[in-house]
Amino acid sequence: MILRADAVALDAADPLARFREEFVIPDPSLVYLDGNSLGRTPKSAVARLQALASEQWAGRLISGWEEWLSMPTRVGDQLAPLIGARSGEVVVHDSTSVNLFQLLHAAAAVRPGRRALVVADDEFPSDRYIAQSVAASLGMTVRPLTADVRLDDVAVVLRSLVDYRTAEVADVRSFTAAATQAGALMIWDLSHATGAIEVDVHAAGVELAVGCTYKFLNGGPGAPAFTFAASSLHSQLEQPIHGWWSHHDQFEMDTPYAPHADIRRFLIGTPPVLALAAAEEGIALCARAGMPAIAAKTSALTRFGIELCAQEGLPTATPTEDSRRGGHVAIRHPDARTLVLRMATDCHVVADFRPPDIVRLGCSALTTRFTDVYDGVAAVLSLSRRP
Amino acid sequence: MILRADAVALDAADPLARFREEFVIPDPSLVYLDGNSLGRTPKSAVARLQALASEQWAGRLISGWEEWLSMPTRVGDQLAPLIGARSGEVVVHDSTSVNLFQLLHAAAAVRPGRRALVVADDEFPSDRYIAQSVAASLGMTVRPLTADVRLDDVAVVLRSLVDYRTAEVADVRSFTAAATQAGALMIWDLSHATGAIEVDVHAAGVELAVGCTYKFLNGGPGAPAFTFAASSLHSQLEQPIHGWWSHHDQFEMDTPYAPHADIRRFLIGTPPVLALAAAEEGIALCARAGMPAIAAKTSALTRFGIELCAQEGLPTATPTEDSRRGGHVAIRHPDARTLVLRMATDCHVVADFRPPDIVRLGCSALTTRFTDVYDGVAAVLSLSRRP
Repeated sequence: MILRADAVALDAADPLARFREEFVIPDPSLVYLDGNSLGRTPKSAVARLQALASEQWAGRLISGWEEWLSMPTRVGDQLAPLIGARSGEVVVHDSTSVNLFQLLHAAAAVRPGRRALVVADDEFPSDRYIAQSVAASLGMTVRPLTADVRLDDVAVVLRSLVDYRTAEVADVRSFTAAATQAGALMIWDLSHATGAIEVDVHAAGVELAVGCTYKFLNGGPGAPAFTFAASSLHSQLEQPIHGWWSHHDQFEMDTPYAPHADIRRFLIGTPPVLALAAAEEGIALCARAGMPAIAAKTSALTRFGIELCAQEGLPTATPTEDSRRGGHVAIRHPDARTLVLRMATDCHVVADFRPPDIVRLGCSALTTRFTDVYDGVAAVLSLSRRP
Repeated sequence: MILRADAVALDAADPLARFREEFVIPDPSLVYLDGNSLGRTPKSAVARLQALASEQWAGRLISGWEEWLSMPTRVGDQLAPLIGARSGEVVVHDSTSVNLFQLLHAAAAVRPGRRALVVADDEFPSDRYIAQSVAASLGMTVRPLTADVRLDDVAVVLRSLVDYRTAEVADVRSFTAAATQAGALMIWDLSHATGAIEVDVHAAGVELAVGCTYKFLNGGPGAPAFTFAASSLHSQLEQPIHGWWSHHDQFEMDTPYAPHADIRRFLIGTPPVLALAAAEEGIALCARAGMPAIAAKTSALTRFGIELCAQEGLPTATPTEDSRRGGHVAIRHPDARTLVLRMATDCHVVADFRPPDIVRLGCSALTTRFTDVYDGVAAVLSLSRRP
């Protein structure tokens, strides 16, 4: 029998518990289980924004660019070890959708003659829309990702590592190997994985990925996204949006366009420095805690939630096997949409709803407590029992 | 004979002088003449970022999106009157290069069968690179913009309203009319115009434009850019990057992609809220001052600079006719690059260099004083006279 006292004990023994103090938490009574949509605010991000605006921007003015110019790659280098990438393989810029658009175009061009992109019918909508728009502009087709999908004429396979509804983790090695063996390139969307679970792109054979920084990396609302490309592919990847930041000689105004030889070829226009700076602070906190400790806690939090649901007879859609589970617990409930609204109004618990029937309880290792998970499940339970 | 006392008198009589107090100016002795590259920091932007991070993001968390969701259109509506656009015709998102990429693609698709884009050989480099990449992906050619350019097979003409080197203002009416009469669409890049001079898109027949917000709008480093599309064209414009923010039913995850009927069809992924908020404050200050007053002061500042240069025998590349002049004074100098560096180190004057031989003195109406222009020209003069 799991009791709330067990959650209290787990929190007391949690080696990452002290990280909660690194965040601004105006209402300690709020049970926030939506860090998988928008992570909390690092105190260092507030201080950084203050210093950046009132000292750097105001004080250094245009010469601030001496530092800001390298931000997309510097923040990328900081993020890289969190996914097993190397320095120079990650750049933070634009949005996940823009970055994916670029990477799909670039990857498709590396496999000329192959006329299909593969993406699951239930992939995250923006990824599907982007894939469809890329396919349409290249005269390609989009083929649904199924167990026996034909791959021999496929240019690119796109897939999320962590399913945004169930939190199921895809078998990254076998998918990547299957795509690669069939001669396709594989792009992973790491949005729901980065900062939650251990990802080792090189160990898994992953060469291309995108992901966002505002979920488990606590980068702030609409924080810029990242592009990962294995350095071995850089020279082959030509992305389609040739803004001046991708030009090898950005401030020489009269040279013909030629992209940077390195990961900067994915840059486009001037990046949003304020948003990048906040993202840098969130990423730095994850780097300080370390992915092994974060992944262990993510796993422990979600396992605790799943066991509690099982004990109380709440059906979950999230895998019970630790290695196949991302950073949230998905509870199935016929009135999930209403339930999530009532959790907020009646129980002061923030979760979120995903159609058609899923209540997501996000477990963000640096800020979520075991008691939060307990209280979240308890809220679902109490609201399920009364009409 | 123009004396520094004349500048002092002009500052004393300046109805916009009080706006300087709305900005963070840590070093009042710095002569900053580069607001045309990066505008100064509104005090309200510092306060807004502080409140946004520590109260809205930290306090409202995911429910902050109830307000943030409309930011791209709300900030767009605030910017619209500054260029003569109507509510619902401007949206602030992504970067000038991304926005231009979208708009060029969308405009080219409205003119199928026409196989050329027209852009000047000396257009701002990022705009040229973007046009070339769009043309390449569509199998089109890029034709140089010349006085007698053939337009009858042209899909889109792209041009900056204000030349980034000389500050010359293009004849927006006649260019737009010529393009339109030849059956082409015309896209204006208003980056160096918005917040500096009066632009009335509807009066000039302009239907499509992009522009940045970090120059004369004081939106912050890398602040998001804007897209303007006349509402009469919305239903025809299909941009190529189908992110979920352009989908008509963003949070319904199972509907086939169909873009918003309105200007939101240009949105892509989640916009950088922190950067957008700072931009909103800069735009709000311009709106408060009003474009007529801003344009009058821009004109007076640049006229003062040109007259001073003429008096001292410094050659300028900027038109003397008020209506043909944007927000900076371009001085031609054979050692312009070195001169600009020495202006900063020896004279505490920040200007900028544009190849091959131009020193730009940016005149930002809300923060630049006539004495700044005087001191900037004096610095050029004193450094030109000693080796």
